[in-house]
Amino acid sequence: MRGMPERTLSSRRAFTGRLLSLRVDEVELESGRRATREVVEHPGAVAILAMDGERIAAVRQWRQAASSALLEIPAGTCETGESPIVTAQRELAEECGVTAARWEAGPAFYTAPGFSTELLTLFLATDLSPVDSRPPEDEALERSWLTLPEALAAIDDGTIRDAKSMVGILWLERRLSAPRSA
Amino acid sequence: MRGMPERTLSSRRAFTGRLLSLRVDEVELESGRRATREVVEHPGAVAILAMDGERIAAVRQWRQAASSALLEIPAGTCETGESPIVTAQRELAEECGVTAARWEAGPAFYTAPGFSTELLTLFLATDLSPVDSRPPEDEALERSWLTLPEALAAIDDGTIRDAKSMVGILWLERRLSAPRSA
Repeated sequence: MRGMPERTLSSRRAFTGRLLSLRVDEVELESGRRATREVVEHPGAVAILAMDGERIAAVRQWRQAASSALLEIPAGTCETGESPIVTAQRELAEECGVTAARWEAGPAFYTAPGFSTELLTLFLATDLSPVDSRPPEDEALERSWLTLPEALAAIDDGTIRDAKSMVGILWLERRLSAPRSA
Repeated sequence: MRGMPERTLSSRRAFTGRLLSLRVDEVELESGRRATREVVEHPGAVAILAMDGERIAAVRQWRQAASSALLEIPAGTCETGESPIVTAQRELAEECGVTAARWEAGPAFYTAPGFSTELLTLFLATDLSPVDSRPPEDEALERSWLTLPEALAAIDDGTIRDAKSMVGILWLERRLSAPRSA
């Protein structure tokens, strides 16, 4: 099947919301068998590893989908047509009250490719300065700063249980422990 | 806001499918401000790090939501009421043609807590034996086996761009490089 797509036979829009929409595709596999794919369409997102010396920015917020408050790295959803770096700069200021002089794009990945189009781009932000900013009005956030060992311990003990934050922190640890040449 | 939930004022079911359903909640924040939360309900999932000596199992499959074929660790969705370990054992046999004598639960995490209830449990499976199994009929899978350095290189070069696989491989590297006492 190397790279061979499923052939889309039909596509039906089942929901259109403010953030998400959902479509139901009927597809045909190479074998000729047909299947249904429920696809959540998402505009894309960013997450930021903002390093202030030894500490990285974190936010704690209620997640309705998880029915709990989660500790995560700052993140946000792209506005329509917005480039990920612009989203990242806006979200870091709003959620953490800092701007960064240096930005570097890290890996981009699908958060849940079995059913969601969400592609998330990770950024590393350094040379931070405080900025006067208002948090988003429709989110209640608690800001905190963690050292990398604290963040790794929070993964180990289950305090951090958000995929993008785990990818980001584990990726950062690997990068800092074995820097590669440019 | 420490741990304080948003108060759900109303909840409307907007879609019910075979895998997913979607609800729209109206919530009230502590500030009194109201907001809408679109929540994709998912039955939960598993992903497996199956180690055969130096190599870990991987599968390549078409992902309609990503419009591309992705290289991932084996994974699957829990049937209603199914415990994650049972899902993991079934999926590993179906997708990779092996069973494991030793199973260990790793971290559980939300793949996309901003909009999805999906909680994914990671398992480490070792002492593998081949089993005669048929792959799932509604998926076309290509099986492969990667050493850990190959899997890490695939993350670095963007060949692996699936969050659960990245969490799993980076978690495994950290675990193997710094084993903790039991």
